[in-house]
Amino acid sequence: MNQGGIGAPIDGEASVTGAQIAEVVTQQLEAMLSAGNYDGVKTLLKPVQPVDIAESIGNLPLILQALAFRLLSKNEAIEVYEYLDPAVQQSLLDRLRSGEVLELVERMSPDDRVRLFDELPAKVVRRLLAELSPDERRVTAELLGYEAETAGRLMTTEFIDLKEFHTAVEALKIVRRRAPYTETIYSLYVTDRERHLTGILSLRDLVTADPESRIGDVMTREVVNVQTDTDQEEVARAIQRYDFLALPVVDREKRLVGIVTVDDVIDVIEQEATRDIYAAGAVQAGDEDDYFQSNLFAVARRRVVWLVVLVLANGLTTKVIATNDDVLKQVVLLAAFIPLLIGTGGNVGAQSSTVVIRGLSTQRIQTLGLLKAVFRETIAGALLGLLMLLIVVPFAWWQGQGPLVGTAVGISLMCITTLAATAGASLPLLFHRMGLDPALMSAPFITTATDVAGVWIYLKTASWLLSSMAN
Amino acid sequence: MNQGGIGAPIDGEASVTGAQIAEVVTQQLEAMLSAGNYDGVKTLLKPVQPVDIAESIGNLPLILQALAFRLLSKNEAIEVYEYLDPAVQQSLLDRLRSGEVLELVERMSPDDRVRLFDELPAKVVRRLLAELSPDERRVTAELLGYEAETAGRLMTTEFIDLKEFHTAVEALKIVRRRAPYTETIYSLYVTDRERHLTGILSLRDLVTADPESRIGDVMTREVVNVQTDTDQEEVARAIQRYDFLALPVVDREKRLVGIVTVDDVIDVIEQEATRDIYAAGAVQAGDEDDYFQSNLFAVARRRVVWLVVLVLANGLTTKVIATNDDVLKQVVLLAAFIPLLIGTGGNVGAQSSTVVIRGLSTQRIQTLGLLKAVFRETIAGALLGLLMLLIVVPFAWWQGQGPLVGTAVGISLMCITTLAATAGASLPLLFHRMGLDPALMSAPFITTATDVAGVWIYLKTASWLLSSMAN
Repeated sequence: MNQGGIGAPIDGEASVTGAQIAEVVTQQLEAMLSAGNYDGVKTLLKPVQPVDIAESIGNLPLILQALAFRLLSKNEAIEVYEYLDPAVQQSLLDRLRSGEVLELVERMSPDDRVRLFDELPAKVVRRLLAELSPDERRVTAELLGYEAETAGRLMTTEFIDLKEFHTAVEALKIVRRRAPYTETIYSLYVTDRERHLTGILSLRDLVTADPESRIGDVMTREVVNVQTDTDQEEVARAIQRYDFLALPVVDREKRLVGIVTVDDVIDVIEQEATRDIYAAGAVQAGDEDDYFQSNLFAVARRRVVWLVVLVLANGLTTKVIATNDDVLKQVVLLAAFIPLLIGTGGNVGAQSSTVVIRGLSTQRIQTLGLLKAVFRETIAGALLGLLMLLIVVPFAWWQGQGPLVGTAVGISLMCITTLAATAGASLPLLFHRMGLDPALMSAPFITTATDVAGVWIYLKTASWLLSSMAN
Repeated sequence: MNQGGIGAPIDGEASVTGAQIAEVVTQQLEAMLSAGNYDGVKTLLKPVQPVDIAESIGNLPLILQALAFRLLSKNEAIEVYEYLDPAVQQSLLDRLRSGEVLELVERMSPDDRVRLFDELPAKVVRRLLAELSPDERRVTAELLGYEAETAGRLMTTEFIDLKEFHTAVEALKIVRRRAPYTETIYSLYVTDRERHLTGILSLRDLVTADPESRIGDVMTREVVNVQTDTDQEEVARAIQRYDFLALPVVDREKRLVGIVTVDDVIDVIEQEATRDIYAAGAVQAGDEDDYFQSNLFAVARRRVVWLVVLVLANGLTTKVIATNDDVLKQVVLLAAFIPLLIGTGGNVGAQSSTVVIRGLSTQRIQTLGLLKAVFRETIAGALLGLLMLLIVVPFAWWQGQGPLVGTAVGISLMCITTLAATAGASLPLLFHRMGLDPALMSAPFITTATDVAGVWIYLKTASWLLSSMAN
């Protein structure tokens, strides 16, 4: 959470996005590097933000990347490296000298180092681990031991811990001394001799406290904290709810082992949203970050599973029509309304499941109560069916040149929308209750499931109408 | 961004979510209030976080809400009030005495006050504005003048500004003095006599600086900033990209007028994600916050617009089938595969549009290049069509008891998936290029649009096969 090195000159012009800055920098960088103007590069990059430098280096031809990277100062190099794409990080590791690599990896923050190691081949990780200093090796091995997507993986072990007997003046001295080595100095943690977390205070509390007061008297003893195995989404929700800048992470013995900072949490919230959106679009959630870099076979693989499931479900619809084709043979126009009916059912179901799944994610639906939510959606579905009737039935009546098609379409439309809304709301909630991911019951699945029921209702209604009109 | 009052006792037990804490507190609160045990209430609420108190009070019966609220200390009351649901905020305003209301509104942060005023009837706002102190009235009127969802609306006007000639010691004194009245003390801003922003420094920079050094020498002159009319999503993306805790907002004359803090940005990112998810589910984006509180007619109104659009598009599919029913009359089984074909086309189209729309939102697709993205999706669609063939054609062949249905299904399946993927990728990009919201071209629309083309291709292929087999 660096607030120091800030780039992009003040200009009152329409604001430019970071990606645009990076694009301009890339062009100038490439020209200067090709011309061997290394002093020019240094001057160019001085006012640029680390993340923008990282994107520019990533955009350079492979052969120039290491060259550009070497022109950065040591401190800047670490920061820029942490922002690089995993693919660029790896290719740089191959191109830098082993001494350079070691220094880089040694000086990265433990959480960023672990994220890098996750991407590297096991052999390279073992070699790098062996070459790390004992302290950094221990921390890294510990973090690598936590499961992916937990607080343990997200946290950094670089924080400032104080003791209750410190005075405010002493504490401020500690903060000053440790500031260069910690991710944040704004949240300060108080531990006892066994490293148990006993309290928390902010730098704001410390700066405004009487210099002679003891930390034990200034700190807050009630601390919101998570455990190393807490899911990253829960960590993110807690920081969001309480407007925290950081959240302490404790182990099973309640010892303070790390902190999660708000900047990491923003990325988690975006990642979880992407996952929900992908599920809603029948794309398998995966390592979304590099989606646009993965090859086409990987893309197809990620989608084909869902498609096969949906096509099998659609096969059922085919089966239902094929076994009820008598009525279609009598009135072939009935077939023309099948797409409209299942389309409407699918859309109504998708609306209900979207609202419910998002409500579960943002934890708003829990406030309302789950049963009440399903009931609301059922009524909403019936209401929407009624509104649709006003448009669809006259159209069907006119197309069908008589009451049969219009009546069949009308009756089944009401049934389908009500059913679709109920299923769309209750299936995700059922999955949630069973401890499964409700997003698995997302729009495409609901759509396909209601197709079967919708077609069956429609054809049965039509054949019942036909036979009662014949009598 | 309060880090001071932190609640929920340290317990190593499986972590409880904030909503669960609020639920427990509500029950105890209601019992104590009903029993008149006001001291008990004070003890109960002391260790609880303001946001949890706010949710608990919101859960109480209306008649007890004002009672519970009055038992809070003045400072706590302000904080809790800012976290209350707009509906509860309004009902409290009606129940508190006018003196209490005035003090509350006067002491709220300007940005929270503006958010409250947005919800209140214009008459009440005018009265409250008239009763505010001149300073607060001026600030509030200024903020109300900015458009919704811009940096101007999101920002707070409470920040610490320093001058370049201050020494670090003097600056630290200013920070101490102003700390109680500002939203954050961790980002410090440096302005000249005309209030133009000339630099920025973090409290970390200040605390670690030589006490006698001048701010002008310690600060960073290159500042990322936004204007009052910058869209809130762009503000959020900048804070996320650069891992900032706050971002300065300047007016047209480049004077510093406010700052946006990271906690507000998290809510914006979630709000924008909800909007994208709702669009993907054909639910009209609106004031998502109170979705689960709005009445059923409001719910139906928000969905019916989309449904009507989709039903009209589906009407076209009906028309296509009705005008090509000769071939169906000859082979009625062809009708059985219509849902499967348009279902597959819809799902493939949904996958492509989902990935592209999300890629536009997270700004990852811009790195790849738009044309390349469409081309990738087209190839992916064809690839997926090919994979589907392997499952669907044998099934169709077997159901159709001969080559006609299987061949018609196979040929049209390939055309439909390729077309759907291309349309799914290119229509959102086209909308984006035209400056419209790409989410309008989301899954339900793509699905319905590909239905028409898919059915047409299928029936034309079948009738061509029929006539060539007859010859």
